[in-house]
Amino acid sequence: MDAHDDNLATGTLLEEQREARLDEDDRLRPQFVEAVRDALEAGDDTLAHDLVEPLHPADIADLFELFGRDERPALGLAIAELMSGEVIAELNEHVRDELLEDLSPDAVAQIAGQLETDDAVALIEDLDNADRDAVLAGMAAGDRAAIENALSFPEESAGRLMQRDFVAVPEHITVGDLIDFLRENTGLATDFWEVFVVDPAMRPIGTCQLSWILRTPRNIAIADVMKRDQTLIPAEMDQEEVGLRFQKYALISAAVVDRSGRLIGQITADDVVHIMSEEAGEDALLMSGAGEGDINQPIRQSYHERVRWLIANLGTALLASFIIAMFEDAIKTLVALAVLMPIVASIGGNAGTQTMAVTVRALATNQITKSNTRRVLWREMRVALLNGVTVAILVGIGTALVFTPLLGLVIAIAVVVNIITAGIIGMVVPVIFDRLDQDPAVASSVFVTMMTDSMGFFAFLGLAVASGITG
Amino acid sequence: MDAHDDNLATGTLLEEQREARLDEDDRLRPQFVEAVRDALEAGDDTLAHDLVEPLHPADIADLFELFGRDERPALGLAIAELMSGEVIAELNEHVRDELLEDLSPDAVAQIAGQLETDDAVALIEDLDNADRDAVLAGMAAGDRAAIENALSFPEESAGRLMQRDFVAVPEHITVGDLIDFLRENTGLATDFWEVFVVDPAMRPIGTCQLSWILRTPRNIAIADVMKRDQTLIPAEMDQEEVGLRFQKYALISAAVVDRSGRLIGQITADDVVHIMSEEAGEDALLMSGAGEGDINQPIRQSYHERVRWLIANLGTALLASFIIAMFEDAIKTLVALAVLMPIVASIGGNAGTQTMAVTVRALATNQITKSNTRRVLWREMRVALLNGVTVAILVGIGTALVFTPLLGLVIAIAVVVNIITAGIIGMVVPVIFDRLDQDPAVASSVFVTMMTDSMGFFAFLGLAVASGITG
Repeated sequence: MDAHDDNLATGTLLEEQREARLDEDDRLRPQFVEAVRDALEAGDDTLAHDLVEPLHPADIADLFELFGRDERPALGLAIAELMSGEVIAELNEHVRDELLEDLSPDAVAQIAGQLETDDAVALIEDLDNADRDAVLAGMAAGDRAAIENALSFPEESAGRLMQRDFVAVPEHITVGDLIDFLRENTGLATDFWEVFVVDPAMRPIGTCQLSWILRTPRNIAIADVMKRDQTLIPAEMDQEEVGLRFQKYALISAAVVDRSGRLIGQITADDVVHIMSEEAGEDALLMSGAGEGDINQPIRQSYHERVRWLIANLGTALLASFIIAMFEDAIKTLVALAVLMPIVASIGGNAGTQTMAVTVRALATNQITKSNTRRVLWREMRVALLNGVTVAILVGIGTALVFTPLLGLVIAIAVVVNIITAGIIGMVVPVIFDRLDQDPAVASSVFVTMMTDSMGFFAFLGLAVASGITG
Repeated sequence: MDAHDDNLATGTLLEEQREARLDEDDRLRPQFVEAVRDALEAGDDTLAHDLVEPLHPADIADLFELFGRDERPALGLAIAELMSGEVIAELNEHVRDELLEDLSPDAVAQIAGQLETDDAVALIEDLDNADRDAVLAGMAAGDRAAIENALSFPEESAGRLMQRDFVAVPEHITVGDLIDFLRENTGLATDFWEVFVVDPAMRPIGTCQLSWILRTPRNIAIADVMKRDQTLIPAEMDQEEVGLRFQKYALISAAVVDRSGRLIGQITADDVVHIMSEEAGEDALLMSGAGEGDINQPIRQSYHERVRWLIANLGTALLASFIIAMFEDAIKTLVALAVLMPIVASIGGNAGTQTMAVTVRALATNQITKSNTRRVLWREMRVALLNGVTVAILVGIGTALVFTPLLGLVIAIAVVVNIITAGIIGMVVPVIFDRLDQDPAVASSVFVTMMTDSMGFFAFLGLAVASGITG
């Protein structure tokens, strides 16, 4: 067996062991989680530790989250030595906050000191002021200064996200100079993907992918290798926009600049992947009124976030009730109206939610601008008309057969009216929110449902009365 | 003015020109779009071309999308020379398909030949078989083979996404050997971020960031610089899982392997950012029944995607109507029941949607596994109980004041019952879909609304009758 076979054998073994712990989607297998739980319950901390040790920090963080709140302290004790800063940084923020609550400021300071600035900031930014100051006081001066600087930028901005370690060089040096510089200076960043070329005032004038440097002879000037046309990120830019900019221009890393245009940090695509995944589900959660919608949130917080929207929904439902109350006599005369009216409201609500989801998405990806709003609205209205007529024919025929042809006609017209209303409202409400610089996902749902419910009942009951069907 | 000031002036000028075209969120300004439109309408193609020329390919693609369908051919003609493969690759797929329809297979083949394999595949994969074969026949043999190989993997898999250009080296070479190899072989990939170290059978045994290579003396062996513990991507892996894996392990690039473990390509974080952004809005759109929900879709396709769910919704609304019909006599006696019943259904629907959005999100990020399903369900039920009691008190008191205390009690109990039902259904339905390997976002909404509507009407009307309030 030569060295190569050895390697191969090790590789396969590692892979097999990994598969015993993780399924094909990188989720910890229930059997593995049970094994750790059993070890802890049997008081065998050594076994628990040995089981957990081979895991990647991100998987150790997952294990913590899969355990119940009451089980986590025991796990933490058993694997204390494995609870590196990296594991802490990977933890869901609610689970992490709960864990940090039990630690002294000095212990938190020690963990924060192990982390890159952006992770340390994430750890510290949610603490209250007194705790934050105590933790910062326990840190080394350099780390503290970096974190305080990061905290001076708005939440979720590029300034909080960026790494302060990067490689910047003047444009007059050669590829050879650069390589020598990198080899000789051990204090430099170890993980970087591009070198930034700056003027004497630290303003970026170009970017150089490491692969271009590696492929270029030593005597060529950096200025001849670098790309001058570069995408800079202002430190105040919101992280969602940072994500869109990375996506649009297919970036791997980008220089972050302050207001005077000086290079102060870099953002890399792995951080952007993290942000995108955070922002990914946000719109669906916001539209449903589920707030942050994290299953690790304290129950009290989930309750507060959600009950607000249920109460708002109660308000809109009341409006619908008032409208129905206006037609009490008609319903008493023809109780079929009460039987059929939820159909009109429900279909309208569904159609409105569809249009709203499409609009919110298009706004989030910068696909709707003032240049095409009217065209997109016209498009949505045509889709609504097609949908409305299709559903109206089905409902109308069904109602005509079960009740009377006139009632069939009434409900058919009401459905068309309500689906077209839904199409307009579902597009216009999020666009108005966006123009007012509000998040279009947040309150759109309440407004859209309010309009489709009210319009549904009003159109159906009003047309019924107007048709003379109620006598 | 020395060279440095020159540079600075150029930089500032470029930035100012950029700002005249794009707003702070990288959206093309309406004034700019109007200027291009005016030039085209005035027949001044040269002006239109000159306006568009400085734009990044991604922005040219945006411009196309902002123009109406009928205006696009004129724009395409005026800026034909700027319509590089990169612009075509950046176009929304529907806009691109519409554009390609007018081109000959040879022209499409020529565009595809300019692109990286993954972009060329995206261009070709939606064509029907005859068109696809005609385009492939027009391509160079090497490009054709790469695309045919990519097409042999499932849609949205790593095999379709990966780039076939990468740098792989044997482990016995030194850093100096590697740098010389990269400098001498001009045919290699130009954009890469990591070098893969492979055994003689092309199986990856380690990964080496370019920054590590640049920081290491020439005489050190690659084997001593590389990281052995690496994250490999099977070519069959779904792109959504690829995204989660990149996110979990903070990757910049990763080796893609075939079933026998041989290195066949690489995926880089910029592609993953693209996928994440595609998948980002998907759940919100699917849950609302808006299908793909792209504003550039042909209207007929949007109609087909959405009307299905409206018809499904009609089915569930019918069930609710049947339940109401069972209580016709009660409603006739006490028409207040018809006035109040939509409140119970509406609040339940909202609560169900909240829980469903939270569950779908947690499933999508692998946060719910068999290890914690029961705990999360219990958590959701407690949140539902808190929400239910709060809303029930408000509704109950209001109803008691406007109508009768007994009716207030009836509606309060119905609200609690329906919100708890919503909490259970909103969690259980997506989890069951997930266990059955179905996308939990797709049909959950219809089931959840069906249950909350039916349960809302049944609980309220049934309790009203049982209470004797209807005489």
